[in-house]
Amino acid sequence: MFEQNKELMRAEILTIGNEVVSGLIQDSNSQFLSSRLNSAGVNVRRMTSVGDDPEDMVDALNGALERVDLILVTGGLGSTHDDLTKQVLAQRFGHSLVMNDTVLRRLESIMASRGKAMTPGFRSQAEVPDKAEILHNAVGSAPGLLFQHDGKKVYALPGVPKEMRHLYEKYIHPELEANSSGRIAHRLLRTTGLSESELWPLVGGVEELERWVSVASLPSYEGVKIRLSASGKNREETLSKIEQAERWLVPKIEKYIFARDDELMEEVIGRLLLKESKTLGLAESCTGGLIGHRLTQVPGSSAYFIQGAVVYSNEAKMRLLGVSEETLRHFGAVSRETALEMAKGICERSGSDYGLAVTGILGPGGGSEEKPVGLTFIAVADSETSHCEEFRFHQDRKINKERAAQAALNLLRLRLLRVL
Amino acid sequence: MFEQNKELMRAEILTIGNEVVSGLIQDSNSQFLSSRLNSAGVNVRRMTSVGDDPEDMVDALNGALERVDLILVTGGLGSTHDDLTKQVLAQRFGHSLVMNDTVLRRLESIMASRGKAMTPGFRSQAEVPDKAEILHNAVGSAPGLLFQHDGKKVYALPGVPKEMRHLYEKYIHPELEANSSGRIAHRLLRTTGLSESELWPLVGGVEELERWVSVASLPSYEGVKIRLSASGKNREETLSKIEQAERWLVPKIEKYIFARDDELMEEVIGRLLLKESKTLGLAESCTGGLIGHRLTQVPGSSAYFIQGAVVYSNEAKMRLLGVSEETLRHFGAVSRETALEMAKGICERSGSDYGLAVTGILGPGGGSEEKPVGLTFIAVADSETSHCEEFRFHQDRKINKERAAQAALNLLRLRLLRVL
Repeated sequence: MFEQNKELMRAEILTIGNEVVSGLIQDSNSQFLSSRLNSAGVNVRRMTSVGDDPEDMVDALNGALERVDLILVTGGLGSTHDDLTKQVLAQRFGHSLVMNDTVLRRLESIMASRGKAMTPGFRSQAEVPDKAEILHNAVGSAPGLLFQHDGKKVYALPGVPKEMRHLYEKYIHPELEANSSGRIAHRLLRTTGLSESELWPLVGGVEELERWVSVASLPSYEGVKIRLSASGKNREETLSKIEQAERWLVPKIEKYIFARDDELMEEVIGRLLLKESKTLGLAESCTGGLIGHRLTQVPGSSAYFIQGAVVYSNEAKMRLLGVSEETLRHFGAVSRETALEMAKGICERSGSDYGLAVTGILGPGGGSEEKPVGLTFIAVADSETSHCEEFRFHQDRKINKERAAQAALNLLRLRLLRVL
Repeated sequence: MFEQNKELMRAEILTIGNEVVSGLIQDSNSQFLSSRLNSAGVNVRRMTSVGDDPEDMVDALNGALERVDLILVTGGLGSTHDDLTKQVLAQRFGHSLVMNDTVLRRLESIMASRGKAMTPGFRSQAEVPDKAEILHNAVGSAPGLLFQHDGKKVYALPGVPKEMRHLYEKYIHPELEANSSGRIAHRLLRTTGLSESELWPLVGGVEELERWVSVASLPSYEGVKIRLSASGKNREETLSKIEQAERWLVPKIEKYIFARDDELMEEVIGRLLLKESKTLGLAESCTGGLIGHRLTQVPGSSAYFIQGAVVYSNEAKMRLLGVSEETLRHFGAVSRETALEMAKGICERSGSDYGLAVTGILGPGGGSEEKPVGLTFIAVADSETSHCEEFRFHQDRKINKERAAQAALNLLRLRLLRVL
């Protein structure tokens, strides 16, 4: 696993809100911030969540102030009675609250655009700690705040993810990156098709790799992510280590790497189809629409995704895709033969260049000794060729669905790259 | 917002792992545990994540031991060199590690089932702190551990969510629930179709409600969740408060409540269709397969979900659903007329009892002054009637898609309940 570099700036993240500690919502802000801080060369040492309780907030804040120089607080900056972060921080650092005209004008324009009158609660968001720096919020109402105290920085950001991200990217990340001189860099290699225990033997151990980088390997249902992390005196040295590690590693597992860094499988597929000016038709049985959903998460996907058929019933497979009754009777709905006819059928009937088809048994019911839960056939066809692969997933219904969708997109990717 | 009851048992959750503090993965265990602990009448005061660093782990643990009587630690129990939780806890509480035969036999049978030889690292998972209680792990390799120290309990659970949940449900929750005598109870009312600021005026303020319960209101793209929480001397008193609050609240917003507690919209739809022995066909344009994906998350959905058409192109709308070229030319693909023809088309062509159709402009491109991004038409039809509603979503592409899918399922729900 990835070793943290102890020379880097150290930070903590503090999340405020009863909705988090009571389990009503999942805190996604902390992961976003830790990932971004990390990429800016900051070492996140601890993440803490407490409820809307001033004593707990001050206690958690004081602990963090003892340990690190940079603290990011999220949540509790809104306009309702349980939003106490601003008051608690102002009191802790000895600030008074003063009305800020720029923020007030923004609040007024928000209310005007909603056709509503200003309320005292909403207006109170323009009261800011007098010695704090204001991080103006262009996508919401509550501004962010920066407190400087004994050489330490405490940023307070709204809990609404969109607003938090906006303020972080605008005010915090650029400054951290400018100061970090590129002393840390990461490269994420996204693989699919092999488990961790199948993947690493192909690499042959990480010792060689660790001459240049530290390595984190993270399995998920979509595949194994490998993160390479390097640190050095400057950006050039750091990036060069990453590149050396990649030159050594990638050739050993190239076929399984579908994307780097933040790129998603559905974006890769879109890029490859656009490059060839080709179109796609989908025939989904057990994935139920998940592949179409993933493809259409990408803006502009209408340029290559022509049509999808969700064919849960045998009748729909025959009527919409032209799968023959005989094939279904002889081989069953979950079979190589049916998958191939589905892929050819959607390709012909949608007039797409490629047809992609999935049929499988998700579970928990529907399995047999001959055809167990998890058995899945995936086929890809164009006007001349067709190819089908058999998969045996385990786990439960939802996981089998995720795996089947990912395996199907990967089969298409390999076909588009002429690996198949 | 929900006020925490200060008389309840207090707990903290501590997550161990560099993969969490470095932002590589999102910690979902803490939310699961806090939500479950809460429902067992335990007040979660703080959640902390630290990396695989013994000093940080001990420091965080010591802080929690000062504040609360119950601590749940997750992560770092596996068989690789960075899994240090067991060693750190054993040292902190003065335990020695001893080989446990029951655990060892389980590890041996796991390796045998994989056809692999035992390795020293894997075997080391059978070494357990000598005075700790073993929580046997039937779904994974590393056992959970219970340390009792100065009247306080520290549970260590594996970080793999499936294993953590299994051990929590088997060993921890039943005991907590038995001891809590039902002093706290929750009811989640899931609403959709109104924003928070539209919903609460229908209720007319929460003061009345707060005679019986405390109230948390949580907006999301799928709707507003209202959580009612009551505490009392015993289960009877607690539940009676919840019921009184519901009797007062529900009639004011009944139409918007689609489910209670953990039930999902797609489960509600399945239940309603099964009750009537009716079937459904789907025609998705802008939702791209998301509705089909959601419906097929429910085991047994093949009994009522016959077929779906993902019709991104005009041609597919005509060919698969029989939408007329004239309608598309006159009114456009995103129009009431097209939505209605799509719903009738899928209903007729799939032979389903109901047809549900969605067409809209997700963004970021494709909008115009007359038809802005977010404009969406949703139609439901059966052999005799049809109904279409217009929605104007804002936000971004992914959020519009979530909202459109939820609104479509809700329209079908209201139709199945004869509210439409």
